[in-house]
Amino acid sequence: MRATLIHAPGDIRSEIVPDPVLSTGGDAVVRVTASCVCGSDLWPYRGVTPTKEPKRIGHEFVGVVEQVGADVTSVAVGDFVIAPFYVCCGECVNCRNGVSTSCLNGGWWGSDVRDLGFADGAQGELVRVPLADGTLVNVSAVIGGQPDPALIPSLLTLADVMGTGHHAAISAGVVPGATVAVVGDGAVGLCGVLAARRLGAGRIIAMSRHSDRAAIAREFGATDVLPERGDAGVEAVRALTGGIGADAVLECVGTEESMDQALRSARPGGRVGFVGVPNGGPELPVRTMFATNVGVVGGVAPVRGYIAELLTDVLSGAIDPGRVFDLELPLAEAARAYRAMDGRTATKVLLRS
Amino acid sequence: MRATLIHAPGDIRSEIVPDPVLSTGGDAVVRVTASCVCGSDLWPYRGVTPTKEPKRIGHEFVGVVEQVGADVTSVAVGDFVIAPFYVCCGECVNCRNGVSTSCLNGGWWGSDVRDLGFADGAQGELVRVPLADGTLVNVSAVIGGQPDPALIPSLLTLADVMGTGHHAAISAGVVPGATVAVVGDGAVGLCGVLAARRLGAGRIIAMSRHSDRAAIAREFGATDVLPERGDAGVEAVRALTGGIGADAVLECVGTEESMDQALRSARPGGRVGFVGVPNGGPELPVRTMFATNVGVVGGVAPVRGYIAELLTDVLSGAIDPGRVFDLELPLAEAARAYRAMDGRTATKVLLRS
Repeated sequence: MRATLIHAPGDIRSEIVPDPVLSTGGDAVVRVTASCVCGSDLWPYRGVTPTKEPKRIGHEFVGVVEQVGADVTSVAVGDFVIAPFYVCCGECVNCRNGVSTSCLNGGWWGSDVRDLGFADGAQGELVRVPLADGTLVNVSAVIGGQPDPALIPSLLTLADVMGTGHHAAISAGVVPGATVAVVGDGAVGLCGVLAARRLGAGRIIAMSRHSDRAAIAREFGATDVLPERGDAGVEAVRALTGGIGADAVLECVGTEESMDQALRSARPGGRVGFVGVPNGGPELPVRTMFATNVGVVGGVAPVRGYIAELLTDVLSGAIDPGRVFDLELPLAEAARAYRAMDGRTATKVLLRS
Repeated sequence: MRATLIHAPGDIRSEIVPDPVLSTGGDAVVRVTASCVCGSDLWPYRGVTPTKEPKRIGHEFVGVVEQVGADVTSVAVGDFVIAPFYVCCGECVNCRNGVSTSCLNGGWWGSDVRDLGFADGAQGELVRVPLADGTLVNVSAVIGGQPDPALIPSLLTLADVMGTGHHAAISAGVVPGATVAVVGDGAVGLCGVLAARRLGAGRIIAMSRHSDRAAIAREFGATDVLPERGDAGVEAVRALTGGIGADAVLECVGTEESMDQALRSARPGGRVGFVGVPNGGPELPVRTMFATNVGVVGGVAPVRGYIAELLTDVLSGAIDPGRVFDLELPLAEAARAYRAMDGRTATKVLLRS
């Protein structure tokens, strides 16, 4: 089958690799309908994180089940499924606590999952899914068949970016009527705007200086779009919030500058929900947090647990997070997708298998 | 009147200073019935924070109103009152948001409060209270007279330590049935145990290696007391919590070591409620927080907003936080009180005026 590998910074290749095969009774093989490139895929692409050897890449996909192991009960051949950006069992104490990203039995796409064998990278034609019952969400069981092709982009966002934006909003404690600021206008930030609107935020301030992204932010529910950054961004948010800052701030970037801006954009007693993968940088300023009672909650988003409720809204048309995709390419052109994301000529690229 | 001043590290003096006088229409003068020494008073006493010039000290007191300004409506001469450890207006947006420690008009005992004049230190015979309506809680209005003298220690804890322990528990998200670990066995940590029990925690693990404090922790509701610290403390908490850590951890110390222990004692997706005044040290490890989804929420406790509900439980006898006081001295012997706290021969010292 065809799959995408990263060989070194800037070196993405589409290659032919062995087809996956079932090995444990609990796994499934899924034929990928669509996958995509994540902002976090750019860290190894840019050399920010090391690539020691050629490695399968990609962690977001939807597709159709092609094979199932003997013990799999929740999906069957032919079902359309959404996979979260990780493998999880759904049964351990951390999964039961809603933190399936800390699953005691799970792992990550593109690598070995403990003693359960290799889980293929998502940017490929086929993916072997260990712990299929815990990992996959069966869309066909909800809708009784295959989804409208027009819904594929939105369904694909539930694998990561929409669930991650939702996690930022939940972590920041967004409640009906809240004033929310969103730092970051990538796909996750835009989904954070949509999640905040969905949770009933009264005012949503999106920080964006790109007109195309700002337009989507407004479409997703932003009531204000501010181009300022850093100190000016903090001041601009305060100017819109009676001088004190936002109740909830969604940090959707992961840099030193973005976290600093987020912390200072929150009002006293407010909260930062952070989902940007921390890209080095210094640590959180505990004394400032102490003085202001601004809490910091978040992390790698346990999206598996959010898919069901978000799926309901995607299927009803209440939300259309697939709007974050502004480029679609065939899987074989993955290298071009990375170039577009890296060069910011695309916000998020969908790869059709 | 007699008041307590710090002149330099280790140099606490009881001196005669001018009586306070009313100056704005909104202030009151309170005759202090009891005050006390706080763990945070030990920072300047130990030279951890600088003392540039002799300074009035103390920020926790209860007493009887002796004079009121013309505009004061919520307290009258003769009323028994509790003061939180800061001055606040009760009317600004931060006060209305429940973060009265970030009051836009308030300040701190022992210093000038903006243009409202000097607020005396609490370790004295009289205190001028600016913004009396926003700051003071009128106990006499609740009970119709003066409180039973036996209740004075517990009422005094509502000025700081009991409200601060409660803030740790609230910030950590303690809910009925939760498993809670408390790092720190000072007065605030012990009150954190009591607050967690009051909020319905199912299991409360107190970290203490002092038998007298451990005994109070058990009396306050600790189901387990562990003497271990650092790595061993983390492992001991995990051993009691199915290997994953506590749902909520109350950080009631403020050192690098205690925060590290608290963060690692929380389960994935758990939360640290922190109220220990951060005593320098490094910042919070954002990458670990990201990987584990352990949030950090807390800060300087807005106790003014907690006094009413905690007062109800003190008056009913449901809680007896005054048990944290294990030494009582006359105000004039404040220096001895500091020596006892510094030398850990007392957990918390009450000063009778």
